[in-house]
Amino acid sequence: MSKKKIAILAGDGIGPEVTKEAVKCLNAVADSFGHQFNYQEALIGAAAIDETGDPFPAATEKICKEADAILFGAIGDPKYDNDPSAKVRPEQGLLRMRKNLGLFANVRPVKSYDKLLHISPLKEANIKGTDFVVFRELTGGIYFGEPRGRSENGETAFDSCVYSKKEINQISRKAFEAAQLRNKKLTLVDKANVLATSRLWRETVKDIAQDYPDVALDFMFVDNAAMKIIQNPKHFDVVLTENMFGDIITDEASVIAGSLGMLPSASLGTSSSLFEPIHGSYPEAAGQNIANPIGAILSAAMLLNYAFDMNEEAEAIENAVFNALEEELGTPDIVAESKAKTTTEVGDRIAELIK
Amino acid sequence: MSKKKIAILAGDGIGPEVTKEAVKCLNAVADSFGHQFNYQEALIGAAAIDETGDPFPAATEKICKEADAILFGAIGDPKYDNDPSAKVRPEQGLLRMRKNLGLFANVRPVKSYDKLLHISPLKEANIKGTDFVVFRELTGGIYFGEPRGRSENGETAFDSCVYSKKEINQISRKAFEAAQLRNKKLTLVDKANVLATSRLWRETVKDIAQDYPDVALDFMFVDNAAMKIIQNPKHFDVVLTENMFGDIITDEASVIAGSLGMLPSASLGTSSSLFEPIHGSYPEAAGQNIANPIGAILSAAMLLNYAFDMNEEAEAIENAVFNALEEELGTPDIVAESKAKTTTEVGDRIAELIK
Ligand SMILES: CC(C)[C@H](C(=O)O)[C@@H](O)C(=O)O
Ligand SMILES: CC(C)[C@H](C(=O)O)[C@@H](O)C(=O)O
Repeated sequence: MSKKKIAILAGDGIGPEVTKEAVKCLNAVADSFGHQFNYQEALIGAAAIDETGDPFPAATEKICKEADAILFGAIGDPKYDNDPSAKVRPEQGLLRMRKNLGLFANVRPVKSYDKLLHISPLKEANIKGTDFVVFRELTGGIYFGEPRGRSENGETAFDSCVYSKKEINQISRKAFEAAQLRNKKLTLVDKANVLATSRLWRETVKDIAQDYPDVALDFMFVDNAAMKIIQNPKHFDVVLTENMFGDIITDEASVIAGSLGMLPSASLGTSSSLFEPIHGSYPEAAGQNIANPIGAILSAAMLLNYAFDMNEEAEAIENAVFNALEEELGTPDIVAESKAKTTTEVGDRIAELIK
Repeated sequence: MSKKKIAILAGDGIGPEVTKEAVKCLNAVADSFGHQFNYQEALIGAAAIDETGDPFPAATEKICKEADAILFGAIGDPKYDNDPSAKVRPEQGLLRMRKNLGLFANVRPVKSYDKLLHISPLKEANIKGTDFVVFRELTGGIYFGEPRGRSENGETAFDSCVYSKKEINQISRKAFEAAQLRNKKLTLVDKANVLATSRLWRETVKDIAQDYPDVALDFMFVDNAAMKIIQNPKHFDVVLTENMFGDIITDEASVIAGSLGMLPSASLGTSSSLFEPIHGSYPEAAGQNIANPIGAILSAAMLLNYAFDMNEEAEAIENAVFNALEEELGTPDIVAESKAKTTTEVGDRIAELIK
C-alpha cells in the first residue's frame, strides 16, 4: 500500500472530460490494490489565462513540484490561434511547464490494436503488429532557442534551433535504455544533410551508442522517416528525435492506432514526470461527452509505471483497455456511430474492468 | 515550332538513369510537335565534387542561367552522410543552386492513380481521387538562415529559421493563383502556436488572402497536417508551407501515389526554373536499371508546362504515363516483380506512347 500525490492539470477543451475518466481508472486501481492517491487540481492553459492572466501560474508550478506525478489533459483555444495580437497564449503555459519542470524526455508509444485495424486509414496487413516508441526531446530545439521574434520594423521573423551535447545525451541514454528492454533497435531521425544541430545529434548519438553495443543504431532523414512510418511501421522499435520532428511524426503515427484519441505519453525529467494523451484540446468536441478517454487512461497507466514503478497496476489498466476494445466499446472516433458510447460510459466500463 | 535550351543536371545515384528516360520523352515530344530542344549537360552533387571539388561548380551555374529550363535528377551519396568531417557535401550544391538561381517556389503535385491504389499502404477508398498540390517555399527558412554552426568549444550547435514578409509574399501569391485555377481552397501549414516565423506566415498570408477573395483559406498546424494528409488526403487542394515542413509532408504524401518514384516537382524562380523528381539519389538502386523513371518523366511534363507554356505537349506526356500505367507497365516499385520492366523499357514505352 502506497500513498501518492498526483497533480491534476485538466486544461482546456476536452482536457477536463478525458482527465476525469483517467482519474476514475486511477481510483479503481487504488481500490483494487489498496493504494491511496491524493489529487490536487491546478489551472493551466486558456483556463488559467481566463482566471489569472497567466497560462502556467506560480501556484500551479508549486503543486506540480510537490506532487509525485502530474496528470495532464490538453491545452489550447482557437480564440488565440488566429489572433496575432494575443500577447499571452495557452501553449506558452505548456512550454514553460515542460521547461521549468525539466521534462526533457517525451515518450510516445505507437501500437496498433487488432480490434481497431479496420478504422485505420492504413491497410491492415501493413500495420498489424506495429509496436514502437518515440523518444522526443522536449525542452530544447526550435521550441525554446533564442533569439526568437521579430525584427524592429516587423518585416522579418526568426526562430533559433539550438542543441547542446548535454541535452542530446540525456534523452539519448533514456532511448538506448528503452531499446535494451525492447527489440534492441534504435533509429535516430534527423536532417543531418541540412542542419548543423542534426549533425551534432548524429555525432553525439554515435558516441553514446558505444556504451550500448547490444543496440543496433540506424539513421534516417526526417522526410524519409515521415514516409517509412506509413509505408512500413514495423521497421521501427525505438525512434529517437528532436523536439519539432518528434511533434510531427508522433501525430502522424497516430493514424496507425486508428485515432489520435488512443495515444498516451509520458514526459520525464530528473525530478518531475508528467503524463498526457498526445491529442490536443479538440475544442469542437468539448462539452459533448464524445471525446475518447483512452489516451488519457493509458497515460494514467504510464504514470503508474514510470512514476510509481507500479507495473502490475499499470498492466491492470492496459488489460482493461484491451478488454474494452475486445467488447467493441468506444467513443465515435473508434466505434460505428450507432454503437458508440459516451466518454463517461467508456471510462465507467474500463474502471469496472480494472476491478 | 520552338527552339529551346535545356540544362541537364543528372547528378548522383539513380539521377542519370531516370534523367535519360525523361530526355527520351522530351525528344519524343520534340519529334511529334516539331520543336527543337538543345541539351547541355552539367555536373552537380557528389559527381561534381569528385571531378571539381565543388558540388555546384561555376560552370554549372552558368549553364543553368543560360538555359530556358533545367532538368535535374537527384543528389546525395551515403559516403558523406555519416562523415562529420566531410567539409563539402553534395546537398550543399543543391541548396546553393536553389538559392543562386532564386528558385523560391517548389511545386509538388500529389495524385493517386487508380491503377496503383493497390500498392499504396493506404486503404484504397481513402485515397482514390486524391489531387492536391503543395507549394513549398524553397530558398528560406531553416535551410538557409544565419547564424548556423557550432559553438567554439563544439558543445553546442545551432540553426536559424528566418523569414521575411517579402519571401512569404512571393510564394504565397503563386499558391493563391494556383488555387484560383483549381478548387479555390488553400491550406497554410505552419506551427503558429510555437514559432515566431509561423506567426509571420499566418499574418502575411491572411493579408494576401484579401486579394484573392474567391479562394477559401484555412490554417493547419504541421503536426495535425501530417496526420490529416494520411487520414483524409481529399481534404486538400493547395497546401502552402515553409521549407522544412514542405520537405517532410511531401515525402510523406508520396505514399498516396504508391511510390516516391512517381512524384515530379517544379522549382520556380523569377528568371530560372528547375524540374526534378522528388525522390533522392537512391544509391542502393543505382546502376541496376530498376529505378522508376516516371517521377522524372512527369517532371519533364511540368517543364514543358511551366517553363515553355507547352500545355498540349505536357499533356501528351501525362497521357502517355497514364496509358502506360493502364497497361500495367512499370518498374518493380509499382508492378509485381514477375511483370516488372526495367527503367529503360518503361522510358522506351512511354516515349513510344507519346508519338
Ligand atoms: C500544443 C503544442 C505546443 C504541443 C507541441 O507542439 O509540443 C503539442 O502539439 C504536443 O505535441 O504536445
Ligand atoms: C536532399 C535534401 C537537401 C532535399 C531537401 O531537404 O530539400 C531533399 O530532401 C528534397 O526534398 O529536395
